[in-house]
Amino acid sequence: MMDQLAKESPKSAKSLRKEIEECGRELAYLQRKCRELEIPVLIVVEGLSAAGKGTIINRMIQPMDPRGFKVSCIASPNRDEQMRPFLWRFWRRTPSADRMAIFDRSWYRNLLDVEIANQLNEADLKKAYSDVRAFERQLRDGGTVILKFFLEISKKEQAARLAVLQENPATAWRVSDAVLQRHSRYNDYVKAVAKMFRETDLADESPWHKISSESAKVATSLVLRHLVDALTARVKERKKGICVQAGKQPLELPAFPKSPSFKDADMSLGLRKREYLKKLESRQDRIQELHHELYRLRIPLVIVYEGWDASGKGGNIRRLTEKMDPRGYEVIPVSAPNDVEKAHHYLWRFWTEFPKAGHITIFDRSWYGRVLVERVEGFCSETDWKQAYNEINEMEDNFRHFGSIVLKFWVHIDKDEQLKRFRAREANPHKRWKLHEEDWRNREKWHLYEEAAEEMFLRTHAPKSPWSIIEGNCKRYARIKALDVVIEAIEKKIAEKT
Amino acid sequence: MMDQLAKESPKSAKSLRKEIEECGRELAYLQRKCRELEIPVLIVVEGLSAAGKGTIINRMIQPMDPRGFKVSCIASPNRDEQMRPFLWRFWRRTPSADRMAIFDRSWYRNLLDVEIANQLNEADLKKAYSDVRAFERQLRDGGTVILKFFLEISKKEQAARLAVLQENPATAWRVSDAVLQRHSRYNDYVKAVAKMFRETDLADESPWHKISSESAKVATSLVLRHLVDALTARVKERKKGICVQAGKQPLELPAFPKSPSFKDADMSLGLRKREYLKKLESRQDRIQELHHELYRLRIPLVIVYEGWDASGKGGNIRRLTEKMDPRGYEVIPVSAPNDVEKAHHYLWRFWTEFPKAGHITIFDRSWYGRVLVERVEGFCSETDWKQAYNEINEMEDNFRHFGSIVLKFWVHIDKDEQLKRFRAREANPHKRWKLHEEDWRNREKWHLYEEAAEEMFLRTHAPKSPWSIIEGNCKRYARIKALDVVIEAIEKKIAEKT
Repeated sequence: MMDQLAKESPKSAKSLRKEIEECGRELAYLQRKCRELEIPVLIVVEGLSAAGKGTIINRMIQPMDPRGFKVSCIASPNRDEQMRPFLWRFWRRTPSADRMAIFDRSWYRNLLDVEIANQLNEADLKKAYSDVRAFERQLRDGGTVILKFFLEISKKEQAARLAVLQENPATAWRVSDAVLQRHSRYNDYVKAVAKMFRETDLADESPWHKISSESAKVATSLVLRHLVDALTARVKERKKGICVQAGKQPLELPAFPKSPSFKDADMSLGLRKREYLKKLESRQDRIQELHHELYRLRIPLVIVYEGWDASGKGGNIRRLTEKMDPRGYEVIPVSAPNDVEKAHHYLWRFWTEFPKAGHITIFDRSWYGRVLVERVEGFCSETDWKQAYNEINEMEDNFRHFGSIVLKFWVHIDKDEQLKRFRAREANPHKRWKLHEEDWRNREKWHLYEEAAEEMFLRTHAPKSPWSIIEGNCKRYARIKALDVVIEAIEKKIAEKT
Repeated sequence: MMDQLAKESPKSAKSLRKEIEECGRELAYLQRKCRELEIPVLIVVEGLSAAGKGTIINRMIQPMDPRGFKVSCIASPNRDEQMRPFLWRFWRRTPSADRMAIFDRSWYRNLLDVEIANQLNEADLKKAYSDVRAFERQLRDGGTVILKFFLEISKKEQAARLAVLQENPATAWRVSDAVLQRHSRYNDYVKAVAKMFRETDLADESPWHKISSESAKVATSLVLRHLVDALTARVKERKKGICVQAGKQPLELPAFPKSPSFKDADMSLGLRKREYLKKLESRQDRIQELHHELYRLRIPLVIVYEGWDASGKGGNIRRLTEKMDPRGYEVIPVSAPNDVEKAHHYLWRFWTEFPKAGHITIFDRSWYGRVLVERVEGFCSETDWKQAYNEINEMEDNFRHFGSIVLKFWVHIDKDEQLKRFRAREANPHKRWKLHEEDWRNREKWHLYEEAAEEMFLRTHAPKSPWSIIEGNCKRYARIKALDVVIEAIEKKIAEKT
């Protein structure tokens, strides 16, 4: 994107200072407005070394209420972060509805460094940029305003600034070997940046603002002006009630072939107790061994449990984890979001729970709530849940790009079996707490949930993150089947990796 | 603490299994009850290598609802954790009111390793154990049930178990060099553990349950039985309405000598604009230099701003940070806690915001809210706020043990000046949003706040984390004074360190 503002005739120092001050005042106002209207704002400040990112960010935050922003400074990933998909640490820092998230360097610097150091082949780099585009699009579609600035300086100017820093004993430490190395590879960086622009400078959707920062004052005034313009526009839209997705059609998604369907489930499948106990022991022992192997090979495993109320998800998960080492797995029960979660993108809380490489996370209900309960109960708009199929597929792609196994279970019972179990819960004083009014209400909407689940299978049964319908009228059968699916998937992945 | 349960006559395998199952059922019930009654539970499972911590924890969590617990496995601290006081990462993991936090290893393992590796001298180790005692007492006084288990096995048994693990290719990797080294230093560990018990086995308050785990089944049944007994007792107390602090007297605290007082504040102090601008520039330049020095020397700096409404805290903070590098400081505005924060100990949210070594965190209002607004408005009990003086002093001690500078400002104006500023805000359409109904109500309680603040100065003006009253009728004067206090404190600390 060409920077129109930059082309205007040069301004005097005085008029620049005035401009910056005026922008500051507007920004203070806009920040309050965005908070009031619950508009999350994400600002990326990237640039070459010594281009003045810090100075500009400080000028940006000075007029603002500190309640309303958070500056994240991105260094190379730490141990914890290296053990997650590369966007994990950025997802964790995405802004909530009453915040600005300001990134001093970002996922982009991460990819530039990786490219310069030749740590990714061309194909994986392409994948990473495609993950980045999906990440930004998802946030934008969720209502976040995203602004991306890139500060440019010439190699000569960079050399001069580094020299000044080096001369002053208070700042000399900032000119580290890494910085000097980046300076010596200036041309490589410029090339990598050009590729970054090709991949992610999306004119209408998510443009880069390329700002020459030879003059700090000019650059500051340009950045602030862009910021003020973008926020003013969004505040105006929101006041008029224009939704960010207005006029946007959800993607026409291809249905996945051979996705499972309730029609194919044989609800008569069962298992006798004796056979069950024998199988249970051998399967659990096998899982225990495989859990060690996953750990050794640093393969993360994500398992989703969805299914009808009283279908036996809890007991099924218990049998799966009974012999696992608790240091290596976690069960995340998903219920209605708390107020912190509500203030973020709906995928935020799932991203943050992604397991470390070599660990297992089991979600007892999951992000699929978006296309199940939220769809059926009308907790989100039709556009929201239609859009979610693609967003979910992208997220799971992302997990797999990192080498993760993703498995999804629907524990299935029929309507009669559910009634029997509800009645049994009512009758048993130890189990009565498990049954809620809500369960009866959900039951009345059985066919709506059925319809939603069938469409979910169709749209999200990706070959590498498949759905399995676990026939659950017989709990024993269901437990062994889930164990078998997990064992098979792990064995297959290990075979691929070794 | 002697383990009475362990002394009973040996039980048959069958009766043990029955006992374990029964405890499991009770535990499932108690977990729900604790959640209902908002009782946070913290369980520490420590022990020698191969003592079976994992097995016992898994047996503990199997019957429970995964919504209600979180297992934390503690390894050596990562980069981020090393840059904070050593209890920081444990504070972050303390349970909320609807959770059990289960620690597989804990702060204790941390201290044992540190002692074995000779990384702390005797005096610092003493300090660390005293910090640990304060940590556990604070949580307990806040209503958390704490259980600490230590699993013991003989050196011979340990050798046998490690051999079994090594023979099996699926588990051999678990016997790392570190584990073998720990085994070879078995006797040193036993000695360090004995010291740990001397320091932290507090019979009435926070006893250790020392469990021989030569037999996994016996150990499991003992651990579960202790857990069930402790939770049953607490649930019973809570149902009877007995508060955890019942009968407890807050510590009689010594007043700190020479603590500041409003009586000594000269409210006529002021500064002319020209002199102000000159001083401002030189002080800000100096802060910029010192900020770099702090970073180089890895000294964290914590600054607290308290003061009357409209006293100019925001503008004061802005002048302090204006020339700082935004990568190295953060302003944390403190308002009423959100629901996640409310579910934790009141100090939790401040601990989690502690700056990295070398960084600056400025709290715009702070933990002192406990003894100011919460006291005056009755948001907590009298015992709570009286107890808070000591808890706050302990927390700040803790920060200083880590090498942090702690500074506390009360920005002070008189009642007339406040009225003038309220009126000016009313009259100015750009500032009207700053004035709330609440501000007028707080004003009516001026003398109550005054009394609370005076007692706060008296009880928490520790020599190394002093209060400064910043006379603020003249904003210019206040800004320069705050800058001067910060500059002086940093210079003093740097002189000590270099």
